[in-house]
Amino acid sequence: MRYHKIPNETIRRLPIYLRGLLLSSAHGHKSISSQDLADFLSVNHWQIRKDFSYFGAFGTPGVGYNIKKLINQIKKILRLDVVHRAALVGVGNLGSAVLAYPGFRMYGFDIAAAFDNNPRIIGKKIKDITVEDVSRLPTLKKRKVDLGIIAVPQEAAQKTADAMVKAGVKGILNFSPCYITVPKKVKVITIDIAMDLARLPYYMPGSWKAK
Amino acid sequence: MRYHKIPNETIRRLPIYLRGLLLSSAHGHKSISSQDLADFLSVNHWQIRKDFSYFGAFGTPGVGYNIKKLINQIKKILRLDVVHRAALVGVGNLGSAVLAYPGFRMYGFDIAAAFDNNPRIIGKKIKDITVEDVSRLPTLKKRKVDLGIIAVPQEAAQKTADAMVKAGVKGILNFSPCYITVPKKVKVITIDIAMDLARLPYYMPGSWKAK
Repeated sequence: MRYHKIPNETIRRLPIYLRGLLLSSAHGHKSISSQDLADFLSVNHWQIRKDFSYFGAFGTPGVGYNIKKLINQIKKILRLDVVHRAALVGVGNLGSAVLAYPGFRMYGFDIAAAFDNNPRIIGKKIKDITVEDVSRLPTLKKRKVDLGIIAVPQEAAQKTADAMVKAGVKGILNFSPCYITVPKKVKVITIDIAMDLARLPYYMPGSWKAK
Repeated sequence: MRYHKIPNETIRRLPIYLRGLLLSSAHGHKSISSQDLADFLSVNHWQIRKDFSYFGAFGTPGVGYNIKKLINQIKKILRLDVVHRAALVGVGNLGSAVLAYPGFRMYGFDIAAAFDNNPRIIGKKIKDITVEDVSRLPTLKKRKVDLGIIAVPQEAAQKTADAMVKAGVKGILNFSPCYITVPKKVKVITIDIAMDLARLPYYMPGSWKAK
């Protein structure tokens, strides 16, 4: 089942809620009010209630939302109710951090392969994954990998994306600070790790800038 | 001048627009239509027009928005019109990637100091920055650093945030996969590098999941 009328902005927020619910569940909580979830995530509680209402999740007055049920609903909507296999290309500092990051597993992602073109990195074992030569990217098709993570230098990003698409990848998480173009059927999300910092000064009235 | 009525959701999108405008300007463009900017950033053009109207930026019909003017306006709103000095704590894989990342400078941030508690990392020079002992964090106050970037293991995140706040830091970008608590006057943005991947499967109707 797909929920067709959910706005993109809500889809953008669902992983944030999912994260809060998973952490809350890990702490042993069974239910949570929209107010508590809002406080925990620093978002608006009316926004949470509105977003949840799009897929018919309404909390019980005085009790709140059933955390487990809500996690399952959100996972289903985001199609995270099955494990997705991902491949990383680029095992430098950022790529190594991605491989070591516990968060991917939390959302149900399995980073199943890692590639690099540096002979000194190829063959290295990081977190149970042996880094392969990037020339082996075409094998992804057989290995049922449908997600790609790009952590290569900017100038190699487009070439890497092209090879991923050729190997059957349907979604790409791009950490390179540039835009890449792909066929329409492929979805790319570009992450700029500096961009979130750009929101901070707005909220810092007492900072040096004001003086 | 502050623009009081700009919704948080718009503030969240302004860095995305700013990024697109900076890249467009770097390519030599002088003006851009909301449609072209929307296509470039994969967002809705009506959303862009609505967001820009909050601070009185209206494009000229047939010409579009003046890129340079718009960049200055957005920088002013986000208080990025002066250089902010930031300090990084934790120079492992992720921290090293942060130090090497060109994006921070693009938004006007100067990562002015880096700290670690590992004797093998202290004293190392990365991109003109010599890693200092984390015990030197209190010196930040004198060095006019108002932003902190946390890239330490999860269990050390709260302690690091506490030390940053004590040293006068007003805003924190937290890469550790956990929530940290700080006094109300300090703003924290927690980044989960896995979270954006969680939005991808929703947009991948042809993925393995569907089979």
